[in-house]
Amino acid sequence: MDYLSRQQQLRRALQDERLDGLLVTHPANLRYLCGYTGSNGLLLCLGDGCTFFTDGRYTQQAREEVRGARVVIAKGALTQAAGIQLPAKSALRIGFEADLTTVTAAAALRKALPRKVTLKPAAGLIMRQRIVKDPEEVQLIRRAVDLGARVYKMALRHLRPEVSESAVAGRLEFAARADGMSFDTIVAGGKRSALPHGRATAQPIPRRGFVVVDSGVILRGYCSDMTRTVHVGRIGREERKWYEAVLQAQLAGIAAVKPGQLAGEVDKAARQVLRRARLDRYFTHSTGHGVGLEIHEPPRLGKGQSEELRPGMVITIEPGIYIPSKGGIRIEDMVAVTERGCEVLTPAPKDLVEI
Amino acid sequence: MDYLSRQQQLRRALQDERLDGLLVTHPANLRYLCGYTGSNGLLLCLGDGCTFFTDGRYTQQAREEVRGARVVIAKGALTQAAGIQLPAKSALRIGFEADLTTVTAAAALRKALPRKVTLKPAAGLIMRQRIVKDPEEVQLIRRAVDLGARVYKMALRHLRPEVSESAVAGRLEFAARADGMSFDTIVAGGKRSALPHGRATAQPIPRRGFVVVDSGVILRGYCSDMTRTVHVGRIGREERKWYEAVLQAQLAGIAAVKPGQLAGEVDKAARQVLRRARLDRYFTHSTGHGVGLEIHEPPRLGKGQSEELRPGMVITIEPGIYIPSKGGIRIEDMVAVTERGCEVLTPAPKDLVEI
Repeated sequence: MDYLSRQQQLRRALQDERLDGLLVTHPANLRYLCGYTGSNGLLLCLGDGCTFFTDGRYTQQAREEVRGARVVIAKGALTQAAGIQLPAKSALRIGFEADLTTVTAAAALRKALPRKVTLKPAAGLIMRQRIVKDPEEVQLIRRAVDLGARVYKMALRHLRPEVSESAVAGRLEFAARADGMSFDTIVAGGKRSALPHGRATAQPIPRRGFVVVDSGVILRGYCSDMTRTVHVGRIGREERKWYEAVLQAQLAGIAAVKPGQLAGEVDKAARQVLRRARLDRYFTHSTGHGVGLEIHEPPRLGKGQSEELRPGMVITIEPGIYIPSKGGIRIEDMVAVTERGCEVLTPAPKDLVEI
Repeated sequence: MDYLSRQQQLRRALQDERLDGLLVTHPANLRYLCGYTGSNGLLLCLGDGCTFFTDGRYTQQAREEVRGARVVIAKGALTQAAGIQLPAKSALRIGFEADLTTVTAAAALRKALPRKVTLKPAAGLIMRQRIVKDPEEVQLIRRAVDLGARVYKMALRHLRPEVSESAVAGRLEFAARADGMSFDTIVAGGKRSALPHGRATAQPIPRRGFVVVDSGVILRGYCSDMTRTVHVGRIGREERKWYEAVLQAQLAGIAAVKPGQLAGEVDKAARQVLRRARLDRYFTHSTGHGVGLEIHEPPRLGKGQSEELRPGMVITIEPGIYIPSKGGIRIEDMVAVTERGCEVLTPAPKDLVEI
């Protein structure tokens, strides 16, 4: 990863915001800017260089991982250590991650810095940079997505009536054994499939009905995200129509992805298909979101969102319907925005599977 | 769970703080106060009752889970919906979780509430209540701890040279398949055992050296946390001394746990044993922490911590040493503070295991 050019890009953004520096503590931002993957780190970026602070537990890890920054092992609070680095008498304007820093932590930060320093909320500064993935990142995401699709296929072999949802999730996660899962695996069968976020429970897979499997792996820091819905037992006519509508909505969403397109328009494309099928009132969430070092990143592909899609963005397209006490269906792929349109990264079929 | 009495206890705390109400969004606090286990929830507790807000994705789940609060499914932002519930013309003082709310979210909250409402930072108010577990909670923790110890035993059968760390972690997590893991499983072999937080990697277990296995499961919301260190191959004399010193430090820490004891004194008891063995400079973290709905809760058992232990607190005792480029050892049990002393919850031997 080219950490130095990321830090340089950040420095230009700081100039645009009329900031003399930035304090970074959010783990994904630390990893992005200097390669550090532990917890309890703080990166102080100034015009003339970056300093990374952590505590004694991470001495070895910081030395191995951190690039483009001097490493300081702090004895006490990292904010104190950073405060000491700043010249006491310059009226510096230092930004902090206001959207990722608690009110209590911001107050402590304020106290730890020299009085002359002005602390400025700088929400989303690094995220604006992270929203467009560089080719190396897209490559890593691609590998995570491939692994995610493989382990789904392996878990599917174990999905049958009476097996518990969590046994299915366990198979999936065991097969994955990547750096971790992007989120708690969702395996939601029968009526529980109508829970958009139904984490796997001890409940057995039903003899008949939809089962939503939503899972993601983390590989070298990058997340995958994928949902398929299968039907246990022969599917009924109405249920087949529902599935078909969600699939068509998902394809319409993908078809709308291209550079210059507004995020809200992609959502609209998917939603319209469900509206025509009179199912849109069961589509209770957005069509998708960005994915990268974190499972939920901008852009959000929701109603009226005005963010313009750009090459390098990697997003999910995942319309779903949730019909209370009947069941739910969601189909989700990951998609990279390219120069000319988009590329579906998820290598897994979406035809209806009856088990 | 007796949610109503928890809400009543909170109401008394609000009176002590001269607050008319509290806004709660932190997932563990929501679960503690009203049983909700989803994400994106907001609980507004006022003197005369509680209202719970969530979005359309969680309609069914909120209806099934939430106790002691009216459920409102909000169309837009939950803070907006909560703002509408508050009388526009009363000068209410409403607390918010300042230690769990970002600066950006606090600003949005401020905007969403009627102008006459004063928003007051109320950090740790619910945590002060959660720090002492009720008997039903200790029972749940006990079950999580038992499961955690069982799956460690199962994973140990797979720990041998050349097997990758993550295959061992995978076996452990597959066997667990609880509601999830408390944290990313640590399996750190050989030199990597000197990383206090060495998450399992693709690296094989070495032919000779220490392997630290630190893992925890979540069962019905409650976390377990357990560390054992095994030695692959015949252990040397010096390494055996190190192991023995950490074990004695751990036993000394446990022996110091009783009601009325200061958290810092427990840390001191463990640290002193390592000091006598001239190993204390390798003990780079605290002796332990509270565990409950979250893996890291107060009290912190660190140097000079003045929190008094009370019956019902559940804590870890986990001294460790990390000798750069040689290896590390940590031994960790969970311990409940009782009326007369303490009870070790973790049912697993601590004698040195050579594999």
